[in-house]
Amino acid sequence: MISVVIVGNGNVATHLVNAFSKVDAIKATQINSRDLSNIPKADLTIIAVSDDAIAEVSSKIENSFVVHTSGSFSIENLKNTSNKGVFYMLQTFSKDKKVNFAEIPFCLETENGSDYKLLETVAKSIGKKIYNVNSEQRKALHVAAVFVNNFTNQMYKIGNDICDEHKVPFEILQPLIQETALKIETLSPKKAQTGPAIRNDKKTIKNHLELLHKEQQKIYKLITKSIQNGN
Amino acid sequence: MISVVIVGNGNVATHLVNAFSKVDAIKATQINSRDLSNIPKADLTIIAVSDDAIAEVSSKIENSFVVHTSGSFSIENLKNTSNKGVFYMLQTFSKDKKVNFAEIPFCLETENGSDYKLLETVAKSIGKKIYNVNSEQRKALHVAAVFVNNFTNQMYKIGNDICDEHKVPFEILQPLIQETALKIETLSPKKAQTGPAIRNDKKTIKNHLELLHKEQQKIYKLITKSIQNGN
Repeated sequence: MISVVIVGNGNVATHLVNAFSKVDAIKATQINSRDLSNIPKADLTIIAVSDDAIAEVSSKIENSFVVHTSGSFSIENLKNTSNKGVFYMLQTFSKDKKVNFAEIPFCLETENGSDYKLLETVAKSIGKKIYNVNSEQRKALHVAAVFVNNFTNQMYKIGNDICDEHKVPFEILQPLIQETALKIETLSPKKAQTGPAIRNDKKTIKNHLELLHKEQQKIYKLITKSIQNGN
Repeated sequence: MISVVIVGNGNVATHLVNAFSKVDAIKATQINSRDLSNIPKADLTIIAVSDDAIAEVSSKIENSFVVHTSGSFSIENLKNTSNKGVFYMLQTFSKDKKVNFAEIPFCLETENGSDYKLLETVAKSIGKKIYNVNSEQRKALHVAAVFVNNFTNQMYKIGNDICDEHKVPFEILQPLIQETALKIETLSPKKAQTGPAIRNDKKTIKNHLELLHKEQQKIYKLITKSIQNGN
């Protein structure tokens, strides 16, 4: 039996506690981050609080092995004096949406091999995709995630705005959006590219720019150039 | 029985002929666009050639009802003297990949109601999602499609580049990419947005910029501004 304490009461903490509650080999206890005076001893303590609070919360924990769940926070930023690690799940967690942990990549980092084995055992009890990712790599992943998630979502937003303005239902674009995302499971994004930018179809690009607002034009021009320059 | 002639031998023409061949009520014939001297009479003639060739090909067709399949080409650009229309399927077609026509939005435009009924009957024989979309709306859709398809794919490309440079497998980002695309089926892109830009998390944004190349920084800054300005 592995004992796990989870500090925090946000989405990540709640989903984790729920998942562990179905695993016989793990005994998980959830603790509010404002109530750190009485933390139970545990084999693993997972700090699932906002980035800003990790340093302070970790400084108050005396358990033997403490990890955080942040994508952008380094392992050294943990302020416990015992062993440190990272238990980062790369996915967006929503409060009301069920989480399929089998699909979520777990990015693990520890200071030594035996800690890694423990962390891996805990991750494998609820997940399937386990990766050994150091702090530098995790930082890169976090930036890359902003591009493929937040910035992609902004492309959807602009597409939606254009549809609204011209009174076309945005749902017409849904199958294309899903197909674009699915395509790169079998083809690299570089090879998957199509459209006027990569064809250098100046006439279509000109027509498109005429339909756009100033801010949309700036984005259209910059990303078109990025596609054409291959960077 | 509705007779349909399809002019062209690209991906769209080939996939269409295959689909119609399974429909009893439609007799489809495929014609090479370089062999226009002997076009059979038909209730509907579908020109599925590259945008540049539509005007010339249509000028040589004497059948009663002629449509093209282009997203960016207006109905008036058809040069046949008989009735005109548009039969635009909004999806990326690949040569080797099977097409699920039930998922593809058909955007139809005609000059009169009886032509529309015929075009709709033909579209419904292979598809399920049928929309009446005029030339202005179709142009807007085509621009919006560039954002949600080509530009989104470029976000994937940059994410992939960042992963490669830091020796992290890009596949770690796959579930997030799929989740981001699925999320907007139930939530508007505006409401779905998360991340450092919308939170105005200056510290994370600064850290991210330090990790990027100059061209990537330009895109990061511009889209972050776009997210923050809500446009």
